[in-house]
Amino acid sequence: MAKGNLIYGQSGGPSSVINSSALGVIKEAKAHPDQIGKIYMMHHGIMGAINDDLIDVTDVPMEELEKLAHTPGAFFGNIRYKLDSFENDIKDYKAIQATLINHGITYFFYNGGNDSMDTCDKMNSYLQSINYPGKVIGIPKTIDNDLEETDHTPGYGTSAKFIANAMAEIDMDNASYPEGRVIICEIMGRHAGWLTASSGLANQCGYGPDLIYVPEIPFDMENFYRDVSRVYNKKKRCLVAVSEGIVDANGDFIFQVGKKKDSFGHFRLGGVGSVLSDNVSSELDISALAVEFSFLQRAACRISSAQDQKEAEEIGREAVRQACKGTTGKMICIKRISSKPYKYELGLAELPAVANYEKKMPRTMLNADGNFITQEFIDYALPLIQGEVPNRFEKGILTPPHIDGYNWNVD
Amino acid sequence: MAKGNLIYGQSGGPSSVINSSALGVIKEAKAHPDQIGKIYMMHHGIMGAINDDLIDVTDVPMEELEKLAHTPGAFFGNIRYKLDSFENDIKDYKAIQATLINHGITYFFYNGGNDSMDTCDKMNSYLQSINYPGKVIGIPKTIDNDLEETDHTPGYGTSAKFIANAMAEIDMDNASYPEGRVIICEIMGRHAGWLTASSGLANQCGYGPDLIYVPEIPFDMENFYRDVSRVYNKKKRCLVAVSEGIVDANGDFIFQVGKKKDSFGHFRLGGVGSVLSDNVSSELDISALAVEFSFLQRAACRISSAQDQKEAEEIGREAVRQACKGTTGKMICIKRISSKPYKYELGLAELPAVANYEKKMPRTMLNADGNFITQEFIDYALPLIQGEVPNRFEKGILTPPHIDGYNWNVD
Repeated sequence: MAKGNLIYGQSGGPSSVINSSALGVIKEAKAHPDQIGKIYMMHHGIMGAINDDLIDVTDVPMEELEKLAHTPGAFFGNIRYKLDSFENDIKDYKAIQATLINHGITYFFYNGGNDSMDTCDKMNSYLQSINYPGKVIGIPKTIDNDLEETDHTPGYGTSAKFIANAMAEIDMDNASYPEGRVIICEIMGRHAGWLTASSGLANQCGYGPDLIYVPEIPFDMENFYRDVSRVYNKKKRCLVAVSEGIVDANGDFIFQVGKKKDSFGHFRLGGVGSVLSDNVSSELDISALAVEFSFLQRAACRISSAQDQKEAEEIGREAVRQACKGTTGKMICIKRISSKPYKYELGLAELPAVANYEKKMPRTMLNADGNFITQEFIDYALPLIQGEVPNRFEKGILTPPHIDGYNWNVD
Repeated sequence: MAKGNLIYGQSGGPSSVINSSALGVIKEAKAHPDQIGKIYMMHHGIMGAINDDLIDVTDVPMEELEKLAHTPGAFFGNIRYKLDSFENDIKDYKAIQATLINHGITYFFYNGGNDSMDTCDKMNSYLQSINYPGKVIGIPKTIDNDLEETDHTPGYGTSAKFIANAMAEIDMDNASYPEGRVIICEIMGRHAGWLTASSGLANQCGYGPDLIYVPEIPFDMENFYRDVSRVYNKKKRCLVAVSEGIVDANGDFIFQVGKKKDSFGHFRLGGVGSVLSDNVSSELDISALAVEFSFLQRAACRISSAQDQKEAEEIGREAVRQACKGTTGKMICIKRISSKPYKYELGLAELPAVANYEKKMPRTMLNADGNFITQEFIDYALPLIQGEVPNRFEKGILTPPHIDGYNWNVD
């Protein structure tokens, strides 16, 4: 293949390790000087490509770039923007094409969840349709772990580790009191319970959630009251993990904040923890309180899973390796070989099989009552939270990279 | 002094390092075998002393006890219980006296905030009044940092470090978007802004709060709207740190959840973040969201400040040393010698000067507009969050001690 330049973009809600994938892409690009020249980051994902708003990191010292592995958020800026099909509206595609041509770009990488794989798929189809010599590879990322065609997603392990340890910490705090509270922890997850389920990994230390409710199992308020009463009567405290997206038997969300949809047509959710804790207080007359992990669960760089961070970087590197080999229109995926010991290999997934689908938890990872996890889930998830990353603080505070000429982060 | 046994109790809301003070007491007690025999922990603070409900840790292996330094909550159980004066009601005192005599206890340590120092003071007065040969020493602890007669309190540094880093993480997440939100972070602190102010330590990394509101400065909603609008118009995002206990010009809390008081006559607070974010959404028409740090800020063992953890243990040890020298009716305090470099020594404070008082932030640690910190605060607080403690995980999860015969933590 002829030498070309590279572009990489971040999309969707950030994960704690998305910047590790960016680092992997950059490192591997530098390992192929015969094929890859300049390394550009899209500023705010696909909008950066549309608007020719790029950040050239080719000459940024690696010492500075290495800090990406310890930086939460989508460091180069993300976006939630859905490309129409090029048959329907070619405007955006023409704009991106102009950017690619202007900068001699033939390697295109997009890092995100299922909506982002839809973007990848459309970009690849468009470039093929015009015979543009571009290679398009999707790099998976989502704390929600709900992508098809991959054993798990980069970002999940670190958020799972945050959630499990936060649950242990909260339970130890609650256990301090002779009579504890019912504490309801609201955890992200619109349609899949992977993150909420990870709370149960805490229990190996003797503390953690007593009850876990996920969107895969219809939520029944009377069963919930019965579950909570049983636990509280026995332990004088009760810790509950609940997905933001739990639904009743009709498939309606237990609580919807507003009716506003985002640009992908999703409702914005939140507040189910407050609803449940208010209900416990009023119906069961037990002191109850909601804790919403909110942004903390997806920005928890301080206790990254070393395994997750390593895989995120590896997948970024593999994307570049595959593109250099001529692969296009695929997503890098993780294939598990075994759980004990944990072994995996990287592979390629078809973008249409990933785009716009959401992978739910299998029923066998949840107990018969639908209010806790099974050993099958523990065997699946525990390897993903292993290993600690040494803290990188300056004067007690985490340190993002400083990139000359890219000062949107500092006002 | 004749040889005697030792009792230690934990009281009030937990901090992440209260168990390090317990560890310090135990370690130092073992260093004085000529003076101290058995080492008892009160189960649930003073209630354990009243009910003769003690945990004997004398023979627990140190390897297990060392895990206390990495365990949040009050591991031996806390209590919120106010002793009446013994002149008014001698019943509790007689019960405690019986426990001391039953177990040959002459060393009495109580670890908590100002209410706990009140308990210490009363216990000391009572034992003196009956000529009981007991030594009573208070060990300070509170994440709120609101104790008089000490430069700062063990527990503050670790919570401050959690808060500052969480604010940096949340700001980096919010900065990912082309148009971010107004995010209001609600931080603990009923009458003093020390914890909320610590959020500003984040800013040395280029990310962190734009606005900080503490209870020491009367809160004005119109000024708040003006501040938020100014920041948002400039940055397209705004991060606000606000104390749960902010009050208006009349001294009324901006938001009170219920009217229920705890046994010390304090209102339970919460929800000011939601009130402010709802107001920003409706009045300024900017997407706003509240994050309440809740228990996470006082149970954040995973990124303890090494300095804080070290001081917590030292203070526990010094309490035992002082008691062995015959000191009684005092609280161990920290006296700062200098901030650059940070130097301090331990001293003794009078219990009545600590009991039931709350130390506010000096006005000079807050800016003229009353919506941010000054360099004076940074110089004061930054040394307290320094140093990282190596993580102690087993299979990715934190590991509390397991003490035979003391299984309340495992059901």
